[in-house]
Parts: sequence; C-alpha cells; structure tokens
Amino acid sequence: MDDLKELLVKVKNGEISVEEAESVLKAAPFTDMGFAKLDTHRKMRSGFPEVVFCPGKADEFLVSIFIKLMEEDGRVLGTRGCEHQYELLKKEIPDVTFDPVSGIIKADRKPMELKGKVAVCCAGTADLPVAEEASQVAEYFGTYVERVFDVGVSGIHRLLSKTEVLQSANCIVAIAGMEGALASVIGGMVSAPVIAVPTSVGYGASFGGLSALLTMINSCSNGVSVVNIDNGFGAGYIATQINRLALRE
Amino acid sequence: MDDLKELLVKVKNGEISVEEAESVLKAAPFTDMGFAKLDTHRKMRSGFPEVVFCPGKADEFLVSIFIKLMEEDGRVLGTRGCEHQYELLKKEIPDVTFDPVSGIIKADRKPMELKGKVAVCCAGTADLPVAEEASQVAEYFGTYVERVFDVGVSGIHRLLSKTEVLQSANCIVAIAGMEGALASVIGGMVSAPVIAVPTSVGYGASFGGLSALLTMINSCSNGVSVVNIDNGFGAGYIATQINRLALRE
Amino acid sequence: MDDLKELLVKVKNGEISVEEAESVLKAAPFTDMGFAKLDTHRKMRSGFPEVVFCPGKADEFLVSIFIKLMEEDGRVLGTRGCEHQYELLKKEIPDVTFDPVSGIIKADRKPMELKGKVAVCCAGTADLPVAEEASQVAEYFGTYVERVFDVGVSGIHRLLSKTEVLQSANCIVAIAGMEGALASVIGGMVSAPVIAVPTSVGYGASFGGLSALLTMINSCSNGVSVVNIDNGFGAGYIATQINRLALRE
Amino acid sequence: MDDLKELLVKVKNGEISVEEAESVLKAAPFTDMGFAKLDTHRKMRSGFPEVVFCPGKADEFLVSIFIKLMEEDGRVLGTRGCEHQYELLKKEIPDVTFDPVSGIIKADRKPMELKGKVAVCCAGTADLPVAEEASQVAEYFGTYVERVFDVGVSGIHRLLSKTEVLQSANCIVAIAGMEGALASVIGGMVSAPVIAVPTSVGYGASFGGLSALLTMINSCSNGVSVVNIDNGFGAGYIATQINRLALRE
Amino acid sequence: MDDLKELLVKVKNGEISVEEAESVLKAAPFTDMGFAKLDTHRKMRSGFPEVVFCPGKADEFLVSIFIKLMEEDGRVLGTRGCEHQYELLKKEIPDVTFDPVSGIIKADRKPMELKGKVAVCCAGTADLPVAEEASQVAEYFGTYVERVFDVGVSGIHRLLSKTEVLQSANCIVAIAGMEGALASVIGGMVSAPVIAVPTSVGYGASFGGLSALLTMINSCSNGVSVVNIDNGFGAGYIATQINRLALRE
Amino acid sequence: MDDLKELLVKVKNGEISVEEAESVLKAAPFTDMGFAKLDTHRKMRSGFPEVVFCPGKADEFLVSIFIKLMEEDGRVLGTRGCEHQYELLKKEIPDVTFDPVSGIIKADRKPMELKGKVAVCCAGTADLPVAEEASQVAEYFGTYVERVFDVGVSGIHRLLSKTEVLQSANCIVAIAGMEGALASVIGGMVSAPVIAVPTSVGYGASFGGLSALLTMINSCSNGVSVVNIDNGFGAGYIATQINRLALRE
Amino acid sequence: MDDLKELLVKVKNGEISVEEAESVLKAAPFTDMGFAKLDTHRKMRSGFPEVVFCPGKADEFLVSIFIKLMEEDGRVLGTRGCEHQYELLKKEIPDVTFDPVSGIIKADRKPMELKGKVAVCCAGTADLPVAEEASQVAEYFGTYVERVFDVGVSGIHRLLSKTEVLQSANCIVAIAGMEGALASVIGGMVSAPVIAVPTSVGYGASFGGLSALLTMINSCSNGVSVVNIDNGFGAGYIATQINRLALRE
Amino acid sequence: MDDLKELLVKVKNGEISVEEAESVLKAAPFTDMGFAKLDTHRKMRSGFPEVVFCPGKADEFLVSIFIKLMEEDGRVLGTRGCEHQYELLKKEIPDVTFDPVSGIIKADRKPMELKGKVAVCCAGTADLPVAEEASQVAEYFGTYVERVFDVGVSGIHRLLSKTEVLQSANCIVAIAGMEGALASVIGGMVSAPVIAVPTSVGYGASFGGLSALLTMINSCSNGVSVVNIDNGFGAGYIATQINRLALRE
Repeated sequence: MDDLKELLVKVKNGEISVEEAESVLKAAPFTDMGFAKLDTHRKMRSGFPEVVFCPGKADEFLVSIFIKLMEEDGRVLGTRGCEHQYELLKKEIPDVTFDPVSGIIKADRKPMELKGKVAVCCAGTADLPVAEEASQVAEYFGTYVERVFDVGVSGIHRLLSKTEVLQSANCIVAIAGMEGALASVIGGMVSAPVIAVPTSVGYGASFGGLSALLTMINSCSNGVSVVNIDNGFGAGYIATQINRLALRE
Repeated sequence: MDDLKELLVKVKNGEISVEEAESVLKAAPFTDMGFAKLDTHRKMRSGFPEVVFCPGKADEFLVSIFIKLMEEDGRVLGTRGCEHQYELLKKEIPDVTFDPVSGIIKADRKPMELKGKVAVCCAGTADLPVAEEASQVAEYFGTYVERVFDVGVSGIHRLLSKTEVLQSANCIVAIAGMEGALASVIGGMVSAPVIAVPTSVGYGASFGGLSALLTMINSCSNGVSVVNIDNGFGAGYIATQINRLALRE
Repeated sequence: MDDLKELLVKVKNGEISVEEAESVLKAAPFTDMGFAKLDTHRKMRSGFPEVVFCPGKADEFLVSIFIKLMEEDGRVLGTRGCEHQYELLKKEIPDVTFDPVSGIIKADRKPMELKGKVAVCCAGTADLPVAEEASQVAEYFGTYVERVFDVGVSGIHRLLSKTEVLQSANCIVAIAGMEGALASVIGGMVSAPVIAVPTSVGYGASFGGLSALLTMINSCSNGVSVVNIDNGFGAGYIATQINRLALRE
Repeated sequence: MDDLKELLVKVKNGEISVEEAESVLKAAPFTDMGFAKLDTHRKMRSGFPEVVFCPGKADEFLVSIFIKLMEEDGRVLGTRGCEHQYELLKKEIPDVTFDPVSGIIKADRKPMELKGKVAVCCAGTADLPVAEEASQVAEYFGTYVERVFDVGVSGIHRLLSKTEVLQSANCIVAIAGMEGALASVIGGMVSAPVIAVPTSVGYGASFGGLSALLTMINSCSNGVSVVNIDNGFGAGYIATQINRLALRE
Repeated sequence: MDDLKELLVKVKNGEISVEEAESVLKAAPFTDMGFAKLDTHRKMRSGFPEVVFCPGKADEFLVSIFIKLMEEDGRVLGTRGCEHQYELLKKEIPDVTFDPVSGIIKADRKPMELKGKVAVCCAGTADLPVAEEASQVAEYFGTYVERVFDVGVSGIHRLLSKTEVLQSANCIVAIAGMEGALASVIGGMVSAPVIAVPTSVGYGASFGGLSALLTMINSCSNGVSVVNIDNGFGAGYIATQINRLALRE
Repeated sequence: MDDLKELLVKVKNGEISVEEAESVLKAAPFTDMGFAKLDTHRKMRSGFPEVVFCPGKADEFLVSIFIKLMEEDGRVLGTRGCEHQYELLKKEIPDVTFDPVSGIIKADRKPMELKGKVAVCCAGTADLPVAEEASQVAEYFGTYVERVFDVGVSGIHRLLSKTEVLQSANCIVAIAGMEGALASVIGGMVSAPVIAVPTSVGYGASFGGLSALLTMINSCSNGVSVVNIDNGFGAGYIATQINRLALRE
Repeated sequence: MDDLKELLVKVKNGEISVEEAESVLKAAPFTDMGFAKLDTHRKMRSGFPEVVFCPGKADEFLVSIFIKLMEEDGRVLGTRGCEHQYELLKKEIPDVTFDPVSGIIKADRKPMELKGKVAVCCAGTADLPVAEEASQVAEYFGTYVERVFDVGVSGIHRLLSKTEVLQSANCIVAIAGMEGALASVIGGMVSAPVIAVPTSVGYGASFGGLSALLTMINSCSNGVSVVNIDNGFGAGYIATQINRLALRE
Repeated sequence: MDDLKELLVKVKNGEISVEEAESVLKAAPFTDMGFAKLDTHRKMRSGFPEVVFCPGKADEFLVSIFIKLMEEDGRVLGTRGCEHQYELLKKEIPDVTFDPVSGIIKADRKPMELKGKVAVCCAGTADLPVAEEASQVAEYFGTYVERVFDVGVSGIHRLLSKTEVLQSANCIVAIAGMEGALASVIGGMVSAPVIAVPTSVGYGASFGGLSALLTMINSCSNGVSVVNIDNGFGAGYIATQINRLALRE
C-alpha cells in the first residue's frame, strides 16, 4: 500500500471495512508509516546499489545473489572474493571479472558516470588490497577516484608532491597499516574530510591493525574520522556519500 | 613572497641578484612553494577560525591567546574550559560567556550566519557535555544544528520519531557512551554520513569509552566513521566540513 | 489516542476528516501503532517503577525528580546516592532514608508485597554494597529476597551449608570480585538461572573487575549469565523479571 | 546408603557397630548428605538431559558416549560436531542427523513436547550457526522456539515488525556479532529477560567477538544479561530454565 | 559437636533418639563431617593466625576485630593500615605498633620463634612497602627472614654478592616492579622455589604492574611461580608454608 | 681449578708465577668463585635431570640431544613432542615411549623411586594434556603423584570427595581453563601450597587462557601461586621442589 | 636539476624563460629544495643499500627487484625469505645464498669491510632467527659483529663471562622472548647504548611478544631503547648507525 | 683492593697469609674480579653523574641525597621534582634552581662544556615537560642540545623547515603524544638514530600514552627505537651516549 490517505478514503467510502483497515495498519506499520518507508526509499534514492560481501557465503547462495542482482540491476559487485568464487560465477555470468589484488568480483553492464573527485591514498604497497577495494567500490558507486599510492610518511616528500591532488578532492581516504601516521599528515594538508582506514599490515606490536587504529583515532589533525581495520568498502562508501553531497546529488 | 614568478622576473631583469634569489628560495621554501602555502592559506580559505583547547593551559597564556584572537577576529571560542578560567577571562573580555555543561567559553561579536543542516544526536543526558560541545562548535563555524538529544536505543521509538529530522540533515553526529549502539541504528535510517562519537559515560566494563569506541568502529551500518572518545569538537568540525561541501562553500 | 479502531470508525462515520486522521496517524505513529505502545504500556504493565541513578545528577534536578516520582507513585528509589544528596532530599521528603552501604536513597509509602524467592549471594564483605543494591532493588520491585552473604569459595563449606536456600530460589544472584569463582560453583548446585555480577573489589591484576567479569563469562557451569561490573541494580531487575515469570505475574 | 535414618536405627539396634557407622559416614559424606545429592538429583529433577560438546573428543570416545546416552535416554544431542563425526556416528546410530549450519548432531526417538515460548533473534545471516545452536538446544530441552533471524539494527524496521513475537515470549535470546547492538534495542522493547550472545562474526577491531561482548555487557537497557562469545548452547539452556519457570514446571 | 563417634555411641546407648541424631547430622553436616572440619581444623593445625586486611574497614569494625583477636590469641596483625587506623587502635591496645613503610599494624604479646630461612629480595627502594609486608607477615607466622633489598638487575653484582644467602634459603620471595626481571635471575641461581611478586612501581607502560606480572609469568627460569601485583602478604604466606614443610612442621 | 686455597699456596711456594695465578683468576672468575659454581653445582645437587622442550627443535638436533642425555644419564624426557619426533627417536632409542595425550617422549632405564606426595588436579578432561605433563614430569623427578582429574567446580561434590587426598599432599597442582576457579576452591581446602596452572582450554572470552590466568592470580584463597598458561612442566617442577623440601632431601 | 643557482643564472641570462623556470621549480620542489634532497642524498651518503622485505612479495616482482639491485649495486639482501623464493632467485642470480635460520637471501659481490664493533646477544636458541637477521644485516652494512648467543638470564654466569666483549662494543643488540629480562641486565653492565629486540618466542601469556616488549620498555637500566617484536633488521640498522657515528663515518 | 697482582705478590712475599688472601678474594669477588668492577668503574669512566628521581622520596632522604651528591660532585640534578621539594632543598643548597615545566631541580657549580649536537623535537606544547626533561638532562651530561619544539605532523611544514637542524644532529629525540606520528616522519628525514618518546598527552583512546607507544614501536621508518612513556630522562641519557660515541669520547 503506497498511500495512507487512499486507505482512509476507502474506509470513509465504505470500500473496505474498519476491521480490514485496522488489520492492514497493524500488520504493516513499517511499510506504511514514514520511518518504515526509509528502507525501501533510501536504497532507491541513494543510488547505492547493493554490494555482496563474499567471504563465507555458500557457493550456491553466492551464485544466486549475483544472478538476481545482475537481472535486477544489470550490474553487481562482490568484495573480498576468491579465485574459486570467481570461477563459479564466471560459469553463470560470462562477463564477470576478478581483481586478485582487491578481491573484487564484478560485472557491470551499466557503469555509472564518474563524477566529482575523491583521493584514495595508501602508505605502502602492502596496503594495496584495501586501497583498491576502496577505489573500485567508490568507482562502482559513480565517484571519480584519484589513486595516490605508496606515499608513506617515512619518505614525506612523496606525499607532499601530491599536495595539489589532495587539496582538490572532496574527500580523502587515507589507508595505512603499521603506525598509521599517514592520516594525520594528510589531515594537516587539506580542508576536506579525511576518512582513515587502518590496515592489518605489519607484524609484532601492530596487533592486527590495532596500533594503526589507535593512531588514527588519536589523530592530532582536525577532520579525520576512522572506519574499521581493512574496511576499504566502508571508506569507499562514505567517500561517495561526501562526494555526492559536494555535487549536490 | 607571494609570487614565484615575480621573483624570477626580478632575477631576469637584474632587479635582484642571483644570490639574493637563491637565498630567498632556500631560506623559505615552505612559505613559497605550493605545499607550504597550504598552512596559511588553508586557514584563510577554510573559514575555520582557531579554537582554543583550554585544559592545562597556564592562566596568563590562556588569557593572552583569547585577547589576541579577539583582537584579530572579533571572536574566540575555547573548549573544555572551567569556571576558574572563565572568571579570569571575564576580567579582560567582559562579553565572554561560559556554558558549564559543555565547558565552552566564548565571545562572539561577529557570529556567522547558520546554514545547511547537521543533526547532533545523543543517547542520554549524561552525554550532553559532548553533544553540546559538538553543537556549539559547529554553530561557531556557521553550521545550522538540530539537537536530537536523549534518543538512546533502549527506547527506540524516541529515535524513530525524529526520522524526518535525521533524514533531512547533510551529516549526523551520533554520540553515545556505554554500549554505543546509537550510531548503527542511525546509520541504517539515513543516507548522509554519520560521525560517531563514543563517550566515556558508563562504568565497569565500559573502560572509559573503549566499549563504545569498539561498537562504533564495528558498526554494521554503512556510512559510519568514528572520532576519539568524548571528541565533540572533532565531530562538530567534520560535520561542518561536510555541511559546507553540501552547500558548495 | 488509545484506539486505532475508534479512529477508523470515526473516519467511516465522517466524524473526523480523512486529512485529520491521516495527520494523527502520521504525527504519532509511535504512540499509536503497536510497537510504539510498548514504551508507555511496558512501564504500566510490567510494574517496574522508575529508579533514579543518582551519580552526576545536579542537585536541583535530583530533588525535582524525587518529588515528581513521589507525587506520582508515592514511592521513589535512587541508587548510588551519597550523604550530600540524602541531606538535600530529606528537606523535601522527610521520610526518605539512606543506606550508606548500598548508597540507596528511598522513600516508600506504598511498599509492594514481597513474593516468590530470589537468593542474593556475595563472596566477601567488600561486595556488600553491590549485594545490598541488588537486594533492595529487588525488594522495591516486590521480590522476596534471601541474603546469603560472605560465602566466598575460599571456604567452600560456608556456601554448601546454604544449599537448601539456593535450591529453593527462582533465581540466584551471585556477586563476587577478585577471581569471581562464586558464580560457577553456585551454577553447579542449582537448577534455576544464576545472574552473575562481577565487582570491582580487588587490586592489582583484578583490573577494576575485568578479571571477575572474564571468569563469569567463561563459567563452566550451565545457567550462568552476566551483567556489568558492580551492576547490582541490573541483577536485582533481572532476578525480579524471572521471579515474576515463575509467579506467573 | 539411601537413608541416614536407617543407618542410625541399625546403630541403635546394634545391627552395625559404631565404628562401621562412623566409617560409612566419614567415607561418603558427599553421597549421603544433602548437598551431595544435589548432583544426581538435579539431573533427574531438572529434566535437562546431558548434551555432548563434540570438538576435540577422540573418535571412539565420542561414539561410546553417544551410544551410552542413546541406550539410557533414547535420545542424544551433540553440539559443534563436524561432518567426520557425523559419518562415524551414523554407522552406529542410523537415525542420527547432522545440521551443517549449527553443527548439531542429534538422534531423538523421544522428542519432548515443545511448550511455552522463547524468541531466538539474530542480527545477520553470519550469526546463523549460533542462532541455530541456541534454537535447537532449547527445542531439544522441550522449549517452543520462534526464530526471528536477520533483524540487525542497521535496518531497524525489520526488528520492529517482529514486536509482537518478541513481546509474547517468556525469554528472548539476542545474538549478534560486530557491534552487537541488537540486545540493547530488544531490551528496550520487551518486559521479559534478554539473554545476549555475542558472536565472533566480524573482522578487524571486532577482536573475535570482544567488541560485541563489551557492547552487550554495557547495555543501557534493563533486563539484559550476557553469556560467552558464540555460546548458543548456554543461551538455549538459560532460556529453557526461564521458560520452565514461567510454565511452573 | 566435636565427635562423630561420641554421637553414634549415644545413639547406640539410647541416650539420644535416632531422630535427634538425624537432625544433628543433617543440620550441621559441614561442622561435623570430614571436609567441613577442614575449616576449623585447618586454622588450628596450620598455625596460621588470622590476619586483618585493613583498607576499607569501618573504624568500629576494625577496632572490634583487633580487640577480639587480641583477646583470643594475644596477638594480631593488620596489613595495609594507615596512620588514622593506628591512632584509633592505640587507644584500645596500647602496645600496638605501626610501620609506615609496610602499613603493618601489629601487637604481639606471644611472638613465635623464628625458624628455617626465607630470603625476601626486592629490586629497588620503591618496592620496600611490599617487601616489608612480605617479610613481617612471614615473621609473624614464625619464619626466619633474611632481607636482601635493593638488588635490581641493572646492577647485577649486587644480587650476585648475595648468592650464598639465596642458596641457603628454603624459599625465595622475589619482588620487583617496572620490568620485573629479578625473579628470573634469582630462579637461575637457586634450587629452592621462588615466589615472584610483581609490584605497581613504575610509570607509563608498566600499566600498574601488568608489565612485571607478565614478565614473571613468562619466566624462563624453572621454579618461579607468581602472586598478584603488590601481594606481599600472599608471598609471605606461601613462603611460610614452604618453610614449614622444609622444617617438617 | 677446584681450590682457591691450593692456588694461593702454589703462589706462595713459587710453584706458579704471580702472572700465571693472575691470569687463572681473571680468566675464570665464574668457574672459580662462589656464585659461578652455582650453575654446575645446582644441577648436580638438585637432582633435576635436564628435560627437553621438543617443539621447534630440528630433527637431527633433537635426536642428538636425546642420544647424548641417554648416554650420560641413562634416561631422558621430552615435553610437547609429536608423533613424528617419536618415530625419529624410536629408531635410535628403541625403548623410547610416547604419550599422545601429554606429548611426553621418554626413555627411562633408571627410574627414580617415587617419594612424598603431590596431588595433581584438573577441572575437565580437556585439561588432561597439561595435567599429564605435570604428573609425568614430577614422576620423572621422583615425586609420588596422585591424579585427581575431572573435578571442576561446576560439580563441587566431585572435588570435595577427594578432600583427604588433597589434604595429605605436600603440594597441590591445580589445573583449569575457562574460568579457572578450581585453584581458589582447593586453596581453601588445604594447608599446603597450591601451584595453579591456567590452561588455554575454552573459547570466546577465554582469550587463550588469559581469563583463567587472571582468575588464578586474583585468587581469594591464601597459598595459591601461578605459572604460565599450559605450563604443566613448570608446575611439576615446582611441586617437586616443594615435595623434596618436605622430604628434607 | 642539481643546482638552484645554475637555474637562476640561466634565468638571468635569458637561457631559459621565466615560465620554464617557474614550472621547473613548481613541478619538482621536492627534488630541488633542501629537505627534498634528503631522500636521494640520504641513500647515497648514508651508505645504507636498499634491503628487500621478502614476505608477501609476488614472485616476478621479487625476482625483478633482486635483479635490478644486483645490476645497480652488485649486491642485494632480502630478509625473511623462504626456500621457495630462494629457488626462484637462484635461477637468475646463481651466487645467491639462503640462510634458513634467519631467512636471509643474499648475493654480495662487493662485500663491505667490517669495521667497529657491535655485540648481538640473544637469550636462547629459539631467538636465533632474529639474532642472525640482526647480525647479518649489520654485517651487510659493514659492521663488525660479535655474536653472543644463548646467554639468557636463567644462567646469569653465561652472560657475565662475556662482560669484556659487551663492554668493548659501540652498541649492544639484546634479543629475548618470553620475559625479555636480558636487555636490563646488559644495560647495567655496559656504557654503550643497548637496542632491545623483543621476540615472539614463548607461549601462553607471552602474547606473541607483548610480554617481552613491555619488559624492555620498562627497563630499569639506563641506555635501553626498544624496536618492534622480532625486528632484527631494525636493530641491525640502528646498531650500524651508532657504530658508524663512533667510527666518525 | 685495587690490584689483584699486588695481592698475589704479597702472598708470594709472605706479606699476607694464604688464608687472608683467600678470605679477601672470597669476601669481595664482585669488587675485585672483572665484571664486578664494571659498576664502580662504569660510573667513573662513563662520566654520567648520578641523577635523582624525586617522586616518592621522603623529605629527609631527598635532602640528604642532594647534599651528599653536592659535596661529592659539586653538582646534582633531580627529575620530576615538585615545588615543595624545591623549597626544602633551597634551605640547604641556596643555589638550587627549579624549572616548573620539566620538574627539574638542579644545582650545578661545575657545569660541563656542551659538545656535539642532539636535536630534541616535540609535537605540541603539551609535550614540553618531557621535552625539557630530555633536553636539560642531556645538557647536564654535557650534550649540546637544539630544541625543535611544536613541530607536530598536523602542520608538516613546521617540521620540514627544520630539516637542516635535524640532519646535522648526531641523534634526534622525537617526543609526541596522541598519535605519535612525529618519530616516523623524522626517521625518514635523517640518517642519524632517532630515540622516540611517547607521551601521555591526549585523552580517550590515547590510553595514557599506549597509542603513541604502539605507533612508535611500529614505525615504518628505519632508525627509530623507543623508550617508556614520558621517559624524557631516558631519551636524554641515550642521546648523550650516542653523541659521545660520535665525539669519540
């Protein structure tokens, strides 16, 4: 039922009984009433197509989701996929591709136009899987991405030489493991928001990314907020949200 | 020196010697060359006036900063101030005010026009100090703020009744201590970015806000990024950054 | 509005316009529709009067809450109060009492009849504040409580001598600091649910109750669930919930 | 010896010597005296049949336990079993079944009648193994279970649409990983006790379920107590204890 | 009742009825039967007089315990007392003494003969409070103690010059804060058991003694076991247990 | 050089030059002077034969150690060995045996007489590997061991029925994982020292044994000291040290 | 461009246009201006050839780096390599060698002269991989290394017998796992700086090296600073830096 | 005894008896033999005068240490002193001075000549106490110090403008709280060793300096080693050790 008013009119006109109306309203308050619409509406309005988190999905289940989304949207993207899952999916969706670095499995017959600008930075080559996940997810959502990779703070000039790119972006994603200092330095160079992504890159006292997470949460630079360890998808999503706001979409 | 070209023209014309030019370029590379401008320029361009972090500042030092900023900008704001600091400052700046809830000490002869919309939400009344810090800082920076307080998830209808406010904001600040679940629920209700602020409200296994911090970093909702425990200032700052992008400022 | 049906009948009869009905339904979906009733109704139906958490409450605010609840319910209970707050409240509510051990401030002109049986156990005398908070809160809610105090596992016969009391209770609250082993031993002695409360009693590697919390969460006995460190109120509340279920209330 | 009185009568009558009686009393105080009976009696009285924790059990040992319980009770249930163990057991107990989702291996020729009502809720599909363990264990113990799955707080309307089911249960089991906010939201919706189960679902800063555990222990909702990470069995057990109390069993 | 046999004889002789005997045995199984005697008997047999943990004890309560123990045993010792408590106790027990370093408050009209040998070692002068607590507690229990203080591993010769003392002891107590390396070095020098006591001495990453605790638990030397942070009493107790075993007491 | 005096006499008599004597004294101070003797002497005097920690040892290296110790002592014991290592060793030492539960690989042609008494207790069957390691190590060192297995506190009567065994031992080893409460209960039942061994048995919030470790370190019972997680060897070693002291060996 | 002056002279002489000069200066400020030279210059000046961190490198990538460095420098060293990588590299660089203990893969046709003195100490044989990494890296950088292995503090005389070697070194690297006490003892024996390397050797509460890390950070000896867990490379690098300073290189 | 040879000559000449010589050698092996000399000699040779750690020292004790050192050395320095201690000391040593920022209490009638160069850097003004402690301690030990304060990475140009100072130092001390990124950036700019000092500056998830400590231990830059949180003294000490090596002292 799309229209509360319509229902009430029908009640008034006796087209449906009071009891029927009551039961409709009681049974489906979340479909009908304001806040409940948010779910269906948000997806439509936001333009964020569904993304599939591949790990742990049973084979048949994964394949059926991909096929269903492909049919509905003409495009589908899965994160953290593996070779095996790719092989399975290729049998059903021949134009599916797999990026072994980021683990992204994708088929996209209706790619979105890339707009605005987001800079995705990472400290070292070991952070590439997360950086590519963030970049490709943002691109799938229609964001124009500049990749600024391998700009760790142990060679600060590499980062500084990219000042212009960073300063012209609507949002910067800063990805780093080990000590995670990258986000603070970038935060001091730009006026746009910085989304920091700690990675699990490192060993010993990096404690699986905890060290980088704490560094980023304690950033002395303004404008830095943080997502979960290795959460490239989340950063790509938020960067797109901000980029769209800047584009007035 | 504002203009590299101008300098080079002078070298060419012999208005200054090669040695002088060399020494200017060497002595002040950070003032002159691109990236170095960022600091001075960023402040000017960004429209973010300086904010004073009051705790631990020596009395005379605090007073002199306030006076200097007041003279330069006609306005000044300090965070986490105390009654004692307020008394000191009132002697020098009679129109200074103090909000004991948020600890904000402020004098503002040139208040900015409030634009756009940011929603600042908090879970309980104990989170008010952080929520007011975030709100007043954002307002000081020219952001229109809607306060949505005391909407903790243990009475979910309170939050749901504010759906419309949340959905119309360019950015939502979600502040909560204890288990910090507020951010995830809000993240599922809106399409704008959510800045989550864990607070140190709680006892026992809240471990000074660590519990809420972990909750928020692990949020199952898209669009949630996190700042440090009790960092209302940081959230107000980032929310303003995003609000300005949405306003194309 | 108490009755959805009534509203629809009025719509049908033309007593109110479709627009009016629509606005009522939209404006107050949480008051009117099922789930939203939970809040108001739950309080009424559950028989759990509101309890005031005293720490950090401003003086006037605390006094006004107590007066308001006293007027409405003829009874009021505050947890973790202090001498100062008691003195304040006594001026307004002469029959208020204060228990310095548990920190409970209470006035109760309509005490509930105590029914069923809950056993509140604690390991040592240092756990008494939490044990009394749990006991008195449960009693305030109408639960008959048997206190089984100072039965720490370092003298296991003390606990065993209370076997009969423990086995006859509908729910057992097990309170202990330091190593927190009490809950597991009790869990093995009874067939009713055990609510375990770690306390911050201890020093050194007790880490403010973390040690006892981990002990209890890892209990090798069936039937043990855990609340926050020092959360006597929570345990008294849950024990009452279970006791009422057992009483078919 | 079943009867203390009988022994004393024999002493009185000289049927056994004082020394013999003394030695019987000293040698077997735990079998004979009150508290010691608790063990054997508890099992009988409580109606909780023994459940086998399968991981790490040697093959022959596992098979022999299953056969023994099958012979004694006509039913047996093992938790966290694997395909290999199932294959082994099927050879001996042909009607044994295996649920790969929950890891439950079961043979039940005398299933109990399902009574009362417990709602088992989980946040996401990745929490299903724990949710099914809790559900099937409770059912094995004779509890009627309503499954309310995939109702994570990032889409709050899904949970709200189940309000009626939740409010009609004697106990609610709330299972969630990542940020674990589900328990608090449910705690605010119902008047029955909520048993919260953190799961190890998540990555990065979820630290194997620690994040969800802290969230649940710090719940701002009344009536929430917590069991160990992934402890579906424990939750099903406690829910059954409470359900039985409500049924006056 | 002191004697089970006596009771049975009375039953046999008809001096008490079977019912009376049954009720005595049932009512007081823990006093009468084997394991229950352990408590009363252990105190008697072990020769460990009760020791009072002073912190947090209410004034009147503390005074009454001291008086009671003084009357019963002619001696009393309290740990972690303060000046204020000492002043209170001196009014009632004039010969009570107070050692401000260890916080031990003591009156001892029947001091035990000091036998055997225990070496109490500490790393620095800041560890003295714990070292004196251990030493004086052991002496109160009748153990001959050699103090080997200020022998931290940063000047290893200081410790080595005490080799003979260490090697002649029945048990060595090794007390250290900061990095806590003392226990391992001593463990390699002697063949008797070493009781390691981490202290909260240190700052920064000593985390209140956690660092020293982990060091000692991970000791690469054989024969080292560990008690809680700052637990001088516990170490003095265990050292006495071992010393007595060596003395065949 | 065995005799300092002899050397000095030779100097006096001119049998060796001053320079030679000086060089002997300087070159070998650790062999000659008191403290240095400790190492060689300790091994001899203590009667603790060397024990081999098998994990990570290279195959040839392991075999050569075993052969060397076998030749020297006629006996050898390795801890935490595996099937593969056993197969290797059997080729060289035909009478070597392997206990897959404890991982102990042993050949013993000169077994020591078992004396005194140590009780090795464990909470559950999953703790058996650690309990057997402790027991067999102690036996290898000549200690008479009573095994008291599967006496976890969730069925407290099992433990209590062993009171006599526990009370007659010179030292009790208490082994438990999960919540580790066993050590505290035993500590309250006996007057001999208790060596507590936390195990990594458990899941979720047991954090690999940390929970049991904290429980044991915070024990409310006197006489409990703790070794590293799963350190059965260490407990067997210390128990032997104490047992020998009690035997005046 | 190597020479700022040269550029300015060209501008003056009209050999290049102002615009060209401006673009050179803007495009490459980091190459040209002071601080930026640091990167290229530092490598040249410092004499630290690049070192390859092997783990996670793709096969082709690894091979190409090795070949490139071999061509440029005539030498190359990789850390933490594995058998498989060695096999690959040997096909291209026949004189490459592999040390399975340290994981170092190396080819060195122009080995540096070994100068000065650094002592690399480790506590046990299990620390050898880290100790060899530190030693061989320092040697590759031209440092003369004395290996002082297996000198753990549980047999302190072993370490003391090496006093002279330690005291004659310009820098001491102290490597230890488990309780990590070695660094403190060495710190008290020498006047040169000690670089402490915690290792992940240990089990249970060593928490992957955290215990040793905390021990070393809390060292009571002066002159001890710490690098990451297992970071032998880092220690070898810093020891070389200090050794070179001492050699006035 | 200063001379072993002298003693032996006396033995040879019969000037002292063999027994006397034996007793001298046995009684004082640590004073006489090699390693034992290290302690006395190290102090003399190293030129590191003793430094007093003031916190927790009893008043009389502190005064007596200061007087003794003043008499012996003509100079004395205490760290982390307070106003009260300064007042006490001034009564006895009139030329004593107190720096309230660093807490250093000092009297120095024989100041050392300042040589070499060490750069002490700190991120913010809140790190000044630690930075001044490091600087003044190094100066007291005769090191020439360049202070490079307030160069946090959130305004990277401030640090870069000091490149020349940093590159000309023999050792750099990098002091920072919050996220502690300073050390990594400096490590990438210089070829000398960097001693990193985490500070407890920060709030929330800085956890008293733990965040900065982890950042620095995980530094991606070569040449960075770390001391304890707030350990300015330690950094000043090590920097002096390195500076002296560079000066060939």
